Amino acid sequence: MKHLISIRDMTKKEILNFLNAAEKIEKSEMRPKFPDSIMSILFFEPSTRTRFSFETAMKKLSGKTITMSGSAGTSMEKGESFADTIKTISRYSNIMVIRSAIEGSVRYAAEIAGIPVINAGDGANQHPSQALLDLYSIKKTQAGIENKTIAIVGDLKYGRAVHSLVDAMSHFAPEFYFISPRHLRLPKKFRDELDRKKIKYNECAEIEEVIPALDIMYVTRIQRERFVDIEEYEKVKNSYVLKPEMLKNVKNNFKILHPLPRVNEIDCGVDVTPYAYYFDQAENGVYIRQAIISILLEGAQ
Amino acid sequence: MKHLISIRDMTKKEILNFLNAAEKIEKSEMRPKFPDSIMSILFFEPSTRTRFSFETAMKKLSGKTITMSGSAGTSMEKGESFADTIKTISRYSNIMVIRSAIEGSVRYAAEIAGIPVINAGDGANQHPSQALLDLYSIKKTQAGIENKTIAIVGDLKYGRAVHSLVDAMSHFAPEFYFISPRHLRLPKKFRDELDRKKIKYNECAEIEEVIPALDIMYVTRIQRERFVDIEEYEKVKNSYVLKPEMLKNVKNNFKILHPLPRVNEIDCGVDVTPYAYYFDQAENGVYIRQAIISILLEGAQ
Amino acid sequence: MKHLISIRDMTKKEILNFLNAAEKIEKSEMRPKFPDSIMSILFFEPSTRTRFSFETAMKKLSGKTITMSGSAGTSMEKGESFADTIKTISRYSNIMVIRSAIEGSVRYAAEIAGIPVINAGDGANQHPSQALLDLYSIKKTQAGIENKTIAIVGDLKYGRAVHSLVDAMSHFAPEFYFISPRHLRLPKKFRDELDRKKIKYNECAEIEEVIPALDIMYVTRIQRERFVDIEEYEKVKNSYVLKPEMLKNVKNNFKILHPLPRVNEIDCGVDVTPYAYYFDQAENGVYIRQAIISILLEGAQ
Repeated sequence: MKHLISIRDMTKKEILNFLNAAEKIEKSEMRPKFPDSIMSILFFEPSTRTRFSFETAMKKLSGKTITMSGSAGTSMEKGESFADTIKTISRYSNIMVIRSAIEGSVRYAAEIAGIPVINAGDGANQHPSQALLDLYSIKKTQAGIENKTIAIVGDLKYGRAVHSLVDAMSHFAPEFYFISPRHLRLPKKFRDELDRKKIKYNECAEIEEVIPALDIMYVTRIQRERFVDIEEYEKVKNSYVLKPEMLKNVKNNFKILHPLPRVNEIDCGVDVTPYAYYFDQAENGVYIRQAIISILLEGAQ
Repeated sequence: MKHLISIRDMTKKEILNFLNAAEKIEKSEMRPKFPDSIMSILFFEPSTRTRFSFETAMKKLSGKTITMSGSAGTSMEKGESFADTIKTISRYSNIMVIRSAIEGSVRYAAEIAGIPVINAGDGANQHPSQALLDLYSIKKTQAGIENKTIAIVGDLKYGRAVHSLVDAMSHFAPEFYFISPRHLRLPKKFRDELDRKKIKYNECAEIEEVIPALDIMYVTRIQRERFVDIEEYEKVKNSYVLKPEMLKNVKNNFKILHPLPRVNEIDCGVDVTPYAYYFDQAENGVYIRQAIISILLEGAQ
Repeated sequence: MKHLISIRDMTKKEILNFLNAAEKIEKSEMRPKFPDSIMSILFFEPSTRTRFSFETAMKKLSGKTITMSGSAGTSMEKGESFADTIKTISRYSNIMVIRSAIEGSVRYAAEIAGIPVINAGDGANQHPSQALLDLYSIKKTQAGIENKTIAIVGDLKYGRAVHSLVDAMSHFAPEFYFISPRHLRLPKKFRDELDRKKIKYNECAEIEEVIPALDIMYVTRIQRERFVDIEEYEKVKNSYVLKPEMLKNVKNNFKILHPLPRVNEIDCGVDVTPYAYYFDQAENGVYIRQAIISILLEGAQ
């Protein structure tokens, strides 16, 4: 494998390969070092968190980074094409991370770059390093990843983290609960695919009733701009807030994940319960990204 | 000590500990190295100079940096709380430097970060690394730091560098001259504290008469936006400009400090006199910040 | 030599010294390392490409970088003078790279900085590292640099890369073809100088007829903002587009250079021909800049 563009490109074995490498890196059983490698980070759509996670991963590997955030002051403002930007920057670096608002643009970049390319999010499409860190967090907290019961809560229609997670987990015989306002349901193409793969899933509108059955609850942000009717948003927003008193009958191994940033989907009171795992999950992102960079750079040698 | 939040938290011994470490680092008697440490630099209020000084210090220690400047394009724009930002970024790094416009916010960050936190300025409140570098500059140029006569000139009401310096110097039996327009006087709570500590100070409106008595003159910028009456500003601005011809009867050890940036408070003709020390003072900032980072990281181990 | 300000300051021998060092660095015959050096990069006029090229070069030399792009959020916004900014930042670093919109400002910076300064472009004036990488690209592709026939196409009036290239090549007995719209001709002072040096040049308005004679065609962007009459621009723009069908009768060693970014001066169909060299040229920029940094830092020791 040369690039990381979509979780849909990956076999179960390849996914497990990344998770295993991350585990070895976290436990310091493996200490890959790339002191002579430069990672270019091109974030056409800014994001401090994901950028920091990749920068940190590369620096922990003794590698160097060059970073562009936004397109202000760049050659693209002077009318340069996306392709020319990619071709040029690839001459300065050994591996490239791209975030873009345009679906498919990162796959195109991978075709022309000549170096390994990592998709750090292309529009509503894919965010595969997020899916891998989510899987890593599930595996680590559940002592395994097969046959888990997972609720995914929030904006299931537009959330690229959700889509990548559903795709990735489908290799591991999960049972899903999809909890969302009606017009933010998981798109039909994903549900059809789950049917085809004979993966069990349930759609519901209420969080509370399903909590006792869950191993994992994956909460996502509901964005106001997805709603035409602001009253509808206010109503929905408040019915999808996870509160400490809802966690009375959970399983011992139950964990709450969130790709962050959180706005108010999870009450701060939940943070101090043993079920809150979202900040650890963010930390896991560094191990996974160290694994991704290492595997792609080694493949490139 | 785990964090550097306010000079008011520090004993005389702790202050001297930082100054001594900086001296050893400057003389290469001590060469601390942190090749596996990452410093996150969160500047919610941008400042190139202070940011560069911290980045340089960390890089001279072989450490790595990840930097956010301003809040544009960050998760906070998506509605994330300050606390969540701090908690997440702290998972990526071993030490954190924060500048914020909100007084007290950095102390709060230190409580939740789980890693050492350095206050690089919170509103009009504190800027302790600036105070330490000012003390280091005084100690280095005066062969000692006790019993010095120090004039502080300019905006004594709002200047956080001034407030931190007055607090810090109070351990060392100084005599102060406070020179400012009347409505930018040093606030009463600071004067009361000096009275309580029996530290001598004089308030005056004219620079020239006091110069011959001084070991140190610490000049600060008077900001136009502090004035309601623009004519008042124009008058005051010009009466607080230090010029070469005012330096005829100074002591041999006399030095002029300024936290920089300067606008026109010090005439450029002063730069070439042996009394100008402000650019050396900026360089001292790197040694002090190397000392701060080293001491906090070692404490964190 | 202490600084790199203008190609006009350099002797033929000095130019060749840079080209030879770049060649040795590219071939790994020389591996200079500066792990304790910090490069400050001050881009008052933003440019991702040139900034990345310098950052990459410094990082390949194991050096560190601190970067300011634009003047937003800097001390200059608070009213600090350019001189004070340079003097202060020079205390944090061992070598400085400056891009500025103001002609002559980088030479002034070099006078006051106290460390080696590299001009990364000052207005329409000079861009000497670009000229050196252009020469390096010519030398590398032509097995030599003397007696070459070179067409320069596009905006010859304002293009600083063009001016630096004409100056630099003048040491190597070239024959020039200058191809431009009439009101974007190479300025008279350059033509007069070529006359004085007895260097052959031809001015023409059409690309196609001269191509078979060329070793090198150097294409530059024609900027819309240089035209008062937009119809004139549209006409000119299209008559200066290099297309694959124009390359039928070229010499075997013929190469097309472009300082990039390209807008539409070179049709993308040209990219796949063996004559397209502009992306390799961008890569050469890293070797040249490694050479420049190494030579200046060694001179500074």
